Amino acid sequence: MTRHNQDNNANMKMPSYFNLPALDVSVAFPQATPASNFPPCASDYFHFNDLLKPEEQAVRNKYWEKAEFPFHVIPKFAALRIAGGTIKGYGCPGLSITGSAVATAEVARVDASCSTFYLVHSSLAMLTIALCGSEAQKQKYLPSLAQMKTIACWVGGGWILDGQKRWIGNSTFADLLVIFARNTTTNQINGYIVKKDAPGLTVTKMENKIGLRIVQNGDIVMRKVFVPDDDRIEGVNSFQDTNKVLAVSRVMVAWQPIGLSMGIYDMCHRYLKERKQFGAPLAAFQISQQKLVQMLGNIQAMILVGWRLCKLYESGKMTPGHASLGKSWITLRARETAALGRELLGGNGILADFLVAKAFCDIEPIYTFEGTYDINTLVTGREVTGFASFKSVAQKSRL
Amino acid sequence: MTRHNQDNNANMKMPSYFNLPALDVSVAFPQATPASNFPPCASDYFHFNDLLKPEEQAVRNKYWEKAEFPFHVIPKFAALRIAGGTIKGYGCPGLSITGSAVATAEVARVDASCSTFYLVHSSLAMLTIALCGSEAQKQKYLPSLAQMKTIACWVGGGWILDGQKRWIGNSTFADLLVIFARNTTTNQINGYIVKKDAPGLTVTKMENKIGLRIVQNGDIVMRKVFVPDDDRIEGVNSFQDTNKVLAVSRVMVAWQPIGLSMGIYDMCHRYLKERKQFGAPLAAFQISQQKLVQMLGNIQAMILVGWRLCKLYESGKMTPGHASLGKSWITLRARETAALGRELLGGNGILADFLVAKAFCDIEPIYTFEGTYDINTLVTGREVTGFASFKSVAQKSRL
Amino acid sequence: MTRHNQDNNANMKMPSYFNLPALDVSVAFPQATPASNFPPCASDYFHFNDLLKPEEQAVRNKYWEKAEFPFHVIPKFAALRIAGGTIKGYGCPGLSITGSAVATAEVARVDASCSTFYLVHSSLAMLTIALCGSEAQKQKYLPSLAQMKTIACWVGGGWILDGQKRWIGNSTFADLLVIFARNTTTNQINGYIVKKDAPGLTVTKMENKIGLRIVQNGDIVMRKVFVPDDDRIEGVNSFQDTNKVLAVSRVMVAWQPIGLSMGIYDMCHRYLKERKQFGAPLAAFQISQQKLVQMLGNIQAMILVGWRLCKLYESGKMTPGHASLGKSWITLRARETAALGRELLGGNGILADFLVAKAFCDIEPIYTFEGTYDINTLVTGREVTGFASFKSVAQKSRL
Amino acid sequence: MTRHNQDNNANMKMPSYFNLPALDVSVAFPQATPASNFPPCASDYFHFNDLLKPEEQAVRNKYWEKAEFPFHVIPKFAALRIAGGTIKGYGCPGLSITGSAVATAEVARVDASCSTFYLVHSSLAMLTIALCGSEAQKQKYLPSLAQMKTIACWVGGGWILDGQKRWIGNSTFADLLVIFARNTTTNQINGYIVKKDAPGLTVTKMENKIGLRIVQNGDIVMRKVFVPDDDRIEGVNSFQDTNKVLAVSRVMVAWQPIGLSMGIYDMCHRYLKERKQFGAPLAAFQISQQKLVQMLGNIQAMILVGWRLCKLYESGKMTPGHASLGKSWITLRARETAALGRELLGGNGILADFLVAKAFCDIEPIYTFEGTYDINTLVTGREVTGFASFKSVAQKSRL
Repeated sequence: MTRHNQDNNANMKMPSYFNLPALDVSVAFPQATPASNFPPCASDYFHFNDLLKPEEQAVRNKYWEKAEFPFHVIPKFAALRIAGGTIKGYGCPGLSITGSAVATAEVARVDASCSTFYLVHSSLAMLTIALCGSEAQKQKYLPSLAQMKTIACWVGGGWILDGQKRWIGNSTFADLLVIFARNTTTNQINGYIVKKDAPGLTVTKMENKIGLRIVQNGDIVMRKVFVPDDDRIEGVNSFQDTNKVLAVSRVMVAWQPIGLSMGIYDMCHRYLKERKQFGAPLAAFQISQQKLVQMLGNIQAMILVGWRLCKLYESGKMTPGHASLGKSWITLRARETAALGRELLGGNGILADFLVAKAFCDIEPIYTFEGTYDINTLVTGREVTGFASFKSVAQKSRL
Repeated sequence: MTRHNQDNNANMKMPSYFNLPALDVSVAFPQATPASNFPPCASDYFHFNDLLKPEEQAVRNKYWEKAEFPFHVIPKFAALRIAGGTIKGYGCPGLSITGSAVATAEVARVDASCSTFYLVHSSLAMLTIALCGSEAQKQKYLPSLAQMKTIACWVGGGWILDGQKRWIGNSTFADLLVIFARNTTTNQINGYIVKKDAPGLTVTKMENKIGLRIVQNGDIVMRKVFVPDDDRIEGVNSFQDTNKVLAVSRVMVAWQPIGLSMGIYDMCHRYLKERKQFGAPLAAFQISQQKLVQMLGNIQAMILVGWRLCKLYESGKMTPGHASLGKSWITLRARETAALGRELLGGNGILADFLVAKAFCDIEPIYTFEGTYDINTLVTGREVTGFASFKSVAQKSRL
Repeated sequence: MTRHNQDNNANMKMPSYFNLPALDVSVAFPQATPASNFPPCASDYFHFNDLLKPEEQAVRNKYWEKAEFPFHVIPKFAALRIAGGTIKGYGCPGLSITGSAVATAEVARVDASCSTFYLVHSSLAMLTIALCGSEAQKQKYLPSLAQMKTIACWVGGGWILDGQKRWIGNSTFADLLVIFARNTTTNQINGYIVKKDAPGLTVTKMENKIGLRIVQNGDIVMRKVFVPDDDRIEGVNSFQDTNKVLAVSRVMVAWQPIGLSMGIYDMCHRYLKERKQFGAPLAAFQISQQKLVQMLGNIQAMILVGWRLCKLYESGKMTPGHASLGKSWITLRARETAALGRELLGGNGILADFLVAKAFCDIEPIYTFEGTYDINTLVTGREVTGFASFKSVAQKSRL
Repeated sequence: MTRHNQDNNANMKMPSYFNLPALDVSVAFPQATPASNFPPCASDYFHFNDLLKPEEQAVRNKYWEKAEFPFHVIPKFAALRIAGGTIKGYGCPGLSITGSAVATAEVARVDASCSTFYLVHSSLAMLTIALCGSEAQKQKYLPSLAQMKTIACWVGGGWILDGQKRWIGNSTFADLLVIFARNTTTNQINGYIVKKDAPGLTVTKMENKIGLRIVQNGDIVMRKVFVPDDDRIEGVNSFQDTNKVLAVSRVMVAWQPIGLSMGIYDMCHRYLKERKQFGAPLAAFQISQQKLVQMLGNIQAMILVGWRLCKLYESGKMTPGHASLGKSWITLRARETAALGRELLGGNGILADFLVAKAFCDIEPIYTFEGTYDINTLVTGREVTGFASFKSVAQKSRL
């Protein structure tokens, strides 16, 4: 079922995944501008814009103006026309990878959960159909997905054991599930498009997350789910086919912590100038300034590393080790940046209303998903040393 | 109103401050022991017990056995007989400060919110009455508070401006509020015991906290609250009188991150041995071992620093700089320890069910309350250098 | 006096500033390639070359081939034709700032002392003459300086008090001293070219440095030094005139830790693959790989930040805050990178013969000179917050 | 040959291992007290003295008074009567292990090289003879070693391959070499006392170290060295016999970085109060105070961890994992402390004359010897997890 007929009551139907905190703190803290009034970008200190092509700048500028957009409903999100990212045709925007990355970061700057929702839908599910699906499948599914009338999730191939898989983002409400599974007869990896109401499919929402709380992760269980021939994705025949999708996805994921960190900096920058202590704005204290500048330096470097990753991809030179280094290094610095920002806000850094607390928690799942920090460093380590060190000798000690 | 008659339906009446996640993860992760089955203490690697007197060991051992206690209800908490801490007589346990610190850490090992609830009630409110109250007040209030039939909170003196104060722990449900306020006629600090239903008193719960979520912090507003003479605390006549209470409180607060970190380590230690990857328990991998050992080293040092603080207090040598150094240094290492532990649990480090995620968030308010990390370092800095550097020159730059 | 007639016995005359350790460790460690056989560049993981113009690539490639050059004598250094950097004409190479930065980094990759020697001579002293000198002075001095037949140093203006100044690099052997000093009659800053044998000038070598040991820093004392009119630098009339020179210099200095870190990585990368422990190359161990990859990530980010600084300069957008952020952030990461590399080499990380120990010490003065880390963060902090926080309230505490 | 007859010309004969920099900086920096005038102890903020027994306090106090002693000659060192440490009888002082540890730290506070010289002589060589030697050997060697008329070194057993061993401290000038070697006939480990002039023994000094430069490390080569029966150490028959010695040695080594860090703090504490910038002592600036306090917190924790290690040893509970955790954790914090101190001194932190630069370099070999940081964490990791992870799978990657 699509959401085609629901536009007029979207607020009621989809509260669960856009129910951000109210963000109006002006009553309690008259001196502080409410977080819902998002600050202008103060974090682009090194004029990153100048490194973008005019059309990529346009993508970016568009979302500055609309920084409020993700706080309400999917239709508004859809109206931004970024679903589909780099896909050309079928109603998709056909952005460059750099342009697509910048859009991801802009969404993450305001809310990392929304950017995760977007990446699962666009860079994983839609991209799989675009790269591996039949012409009929592309025509059937992509336009509706591009308009976000249909929402999709993606269930990674090869890892489905006993028909069960945890942590699948968007899966609790997605209309379509793009699934990679091993055919036990041929032992090949195959791809399928499964509808949300398929008999035998159950999805249970995971509760009690500390980060990306708006993303709906589900435990998926499939018992004898029937898929008609039309919904097999013909271009998926091996584990390697998933890599075409994942290469793009990893670059996009590396841009989430960039946007997240920029949002944190922008908030802190405004807060420190507004909030006074011992008779002066916090921005006038040495210790606060040094933390703020360390954050700013991190962010310039993160932007440049993310941008370089896009360029390496565009020139066909990006290796798995490059992507892993980019993702792991950027998240390491984002974690440091978020901790500094959390601290700079003092007690208000504990309250989600001031946004930094939420972002501090959101960086944690990003640090860990799409390969943990440790695994990603070992992927790069293997590439630069020639030795795979993933396994352990696991020698039970006699001590 | 006391809770004397409510024992039999405690679960219904007090869900809001003990509604921890269910903590049974055995369905989803058959290989992992559920967190509700708290692991034995693996974090006391340097035999801290040997540094305790027999009676202090007894305090400690008692709570190992009952590690499950804070998850249910106040009556069970009360039965542990630790409320009142170092107070002698009036139904209070009369522990040494070291014994009291150890009890605080044991509670924090399982849940930092519970330990905060306990400290506000016991080390702030009860201790104020014990140190500064009249004999009649002690006899009237302490026994019921010691049995937790009455719950109290504490509203710090001197900082109440316009009758309003944020962040007061326990205040949303406390039966008694111990309040320090400036008498505008005499310009003196006075202490009062205010009942929860006093006309003119309103308390609003603060929402959307990321850490210590079980602690109920309130915004307190007082408008012409009348206090009968009997409820003035006669021993409170100056700002300095609050310091007698705060000196103990700060030592206790320094022990919260110790217990918290111990609980994190204990969980990680078990998890790494149970959870397998690439065919071996995570505990067998170099990178995981190194993180675990760094946590363990931090914890030994934190315990010893906390213990030294108790001894300095007992010998009358503890200065404000000592307490600030202890609190700030311990929280710095606890923050590092929590981040390492969060990371060691991978995706399950995002789920509160595995406890580490919750503890990771709980350390943040502790890092910041009772003086932020920065302020505490400057308090010690003033003591060791002779220069106060709290204020800023705040020179508006012409640039 | 110039070195024109000394080419044939340069080895004897100038041992003191190029007497690096012999670097041949093959006798003691047959399995390790000697450091004098410098490894190929493994640290440019993100294809930085592709961001360079062809002529900038040419600058870079030229010095890979000649990595051995700084270990011997100035004439060989001179033959590389990089002295003068961005200066056009007068026998100078007229490089872009990016090309000049890359050359600096390549020298630093092999030896940071040599790159400091080069920067003082070229980016401070020669550039002052080129930007502020008279046509006659340019023609008289620059060609000989470009060929390194004459060596110069630079004595920063405004800071000379009582005719004395510490820490002046190259000053113990420089033929020319470019000096900025306050004219006590006019209270203006003036510039002068002083010859090494000028009566009244004495320079004492500073001893016992732990880093940049090859750089000859001197304590300069001037007593009634006479300077003929021809040697006054006519374009220097204010403190601001020095900033034209220092803007370039700061960008160059930011590239020293980049080259230094690249050299460290390149050495570690080779060493870990050659050196075995417990039956496998060190490169095969998880902990070693993770450190190596963290270094590699830092280096990619440092290169990109340094490159961005050059581009901001070239486009006329570089502010003092930008340069300070670049220099401080890069040195912070370089310090971390050097400590990781030092550790990776174990006991051999203590021996200067393996180069990493030397580089570990060399980063320290770079972290501190041209503005300490702290001062540079406060310069950027002032720019982004609008508040200058350099001064202290310096309130003597009564405690 | 002993040094018995050399007391009167010790200065001339032994310059090489006590030739510290002159340390008088008063000419160049009139405002700074010269480092040779060592500051009083400011780093013992938590009254560590109170944890010592009276006789242990006496050991400590004695060396405060004589802080200048290691800068001159062995006879003065000998007069302190600490050689032999915990050994009872035979002219040795018979200190408690805590007393011996405190003496080590006091020496390291002034100079880490001297404390290393002392540990090799006393805690390795002398202790081996005391624990494993015959009664005749004890009577023959210990009194002269205790008076430092004879100096010894120690060559670790089991690791001697092909009769060659690097890095042996004191070996270039030691009169006696205590050597552990495998008997190729019996395949047992045996111990020997070898004289410096034994035919077949050659020792080559290692050059170009960046840290502990005063310690004379040698490459030892033995070719058919003959040892008379009297000089075989009868109590050494297995690899385990060395562990009795190494257990004590490791505790002592853990105290070197403690003393080192205390010395750094004491210097910084004085320097910051003496040195002015922007019109105020550096001690009055927020950023400087925060660094100083972080150092101070580290030091209190390090002292307590080191003290706890002594107590565990004294009670017979110290495991290898305990010692490794203590050594690795303490050196980790010492490295951080030294880097902060180095930075606090600005340019003067580069000059060995101010002592902090030297200590910054000295911590590096200590961080690495007696088991690197990584190896020690894995030793503890094995003990707490039950898995040995030292080895690598070393899977050559096909990538």
